[in-house]
Amino acid sequence: MTQPIDFYFDFSSPYGYFMAEKIDALAAAHGRSVRWRPFLLGAVYKHTGSRLMLDAPLKGPYVFRDFERTAAFYGLPWVLPQPFPVGTQVAARAFYWLLDQDEAMARRFALDIYRAYFAQGRDISQEAVVADVAAAVGADRAALVDALAGEAIRTRLKDECARAIDKGVFGSPYVIVDGEPFWGVDRIPQIERWLETGRF
Amino acid sequence: MTQPIDFYFDFSSPYGYFMAEKIDALAAAHGRSVRWRPFLLGAVYKHTGSRLMLDAPLKGPYVFRDFERTAAFYGLPWVLPQPFPVGTQVAARAFYWLLDQDEAMARRFALDIYRAYFAQGRDISQEAVVADVAAAVGADRAALVDALAGEAIRTRLKDECARAIDKGVFGSPYVIVDGEPFWGVDRIPQIERWLETGRF
Repeated sequence: MTQPIDFYFDFSSPYGYFMAEKIDALAAAHGRSVRWRPFLLGAVYKHTGSRLMLDAPLKGPYVFRDFERTAAFYGLPWVLPQPFPVGTQVAARAFYWLLDQDEAMARRFALDIYRAYFAQGRDISQEAVVADVAAAVGADRAALVDALAGEAIRTRLKDECARAIDKGVFGSPYVIVDGEPFWGVDRIPQIERWLETGRF
Repeated sequence: MTQPIDFYFDFSSPYGYFMAEKIDALAAAHGRSVRWRPFLLGAVYKHTGSRLMLDAPLKGPYVFRDFERTAAFYGLPWVLPQPFPVGTQVAARAFYWLLDQDEAMARRFALDIYRAYFAQGRDISQEAVVADVAAAVGADRAALVDALAGEAIRTRLKDECARAIDKGVFGSPYVIVDGEPFWGVDRIPQIERWLETGRF
């Protein structure tokens, strides 16, 4: 029962941002740690044939309202960034580069990338923004920029996305506790129930 | 602030069933009444180009797990009925026929249809089952069967579905409070917040 919680998310996912602000405290309250695992929703949607909710008739306008309301519900800062959504491969690659050096630093970076995007409205698809956020949590900026130009980190992210799909991840956020999958920040009450009881 | 709450649902929607078990008490706790409004998800999906979650890769297997877990979370009986999903036009037409006679009876019928399907596993696509459930809440069975054979009740349901789409309804359950839309039973905490504060 002391298995870490797996937290899958795309950096361009508002509900992933809300979960990112909650998951560590939620886990810690039950003696659990969290493995943060960014992936690319685009890669998953390619696999599942899904489309972005934002593009759907009726549902599209609804979700923008729901983003704002859900942020308020959790007491979190919220701006609708422009552009939205954005490609998050640079941020995700940077995360895994950091993870291999220092897991705590990678986690701070992930949360700060989310805040840069959804609280400050900065364009996190830009390498310069990603590098700035990484440097601010103590990373070697020049070494990161160098790594981002290489092939290894691209392959690493591709592998991580494939692994996420293998685990059944089809959306963001997606949380796995003891093999039990929970999709969406609105499953927090059910995650809490699971952490308390070890079952549903 | 004493406007009724609009509750849109498809009788084949598990999350609609969970909401049906909760919405009246939730509304009553804040001095509100509820207008129950069944519609056909098929008609909405035709309009929005959506597809059933059940058919989606990865998401499909997940939702069956989530149905069961969410039922347990709310302390509600649950069986996965066979067949599932089913067409719900007969049940929805019967509802509107009842509604024009007795709103309270129509609401009892709606809840009992949901329970017949998701708690008892009865096939609610069958007219005989629908008529039995209606008779059990006091409806005139023969008159209902007669009405179900006519054109008027078909047109009525078509109109109700068109009206739901006009209101922005794209899924089940869909709840509108003071013009604010909430999609999904997992929005109950946000509905409660709205009912308490009149805003988010």
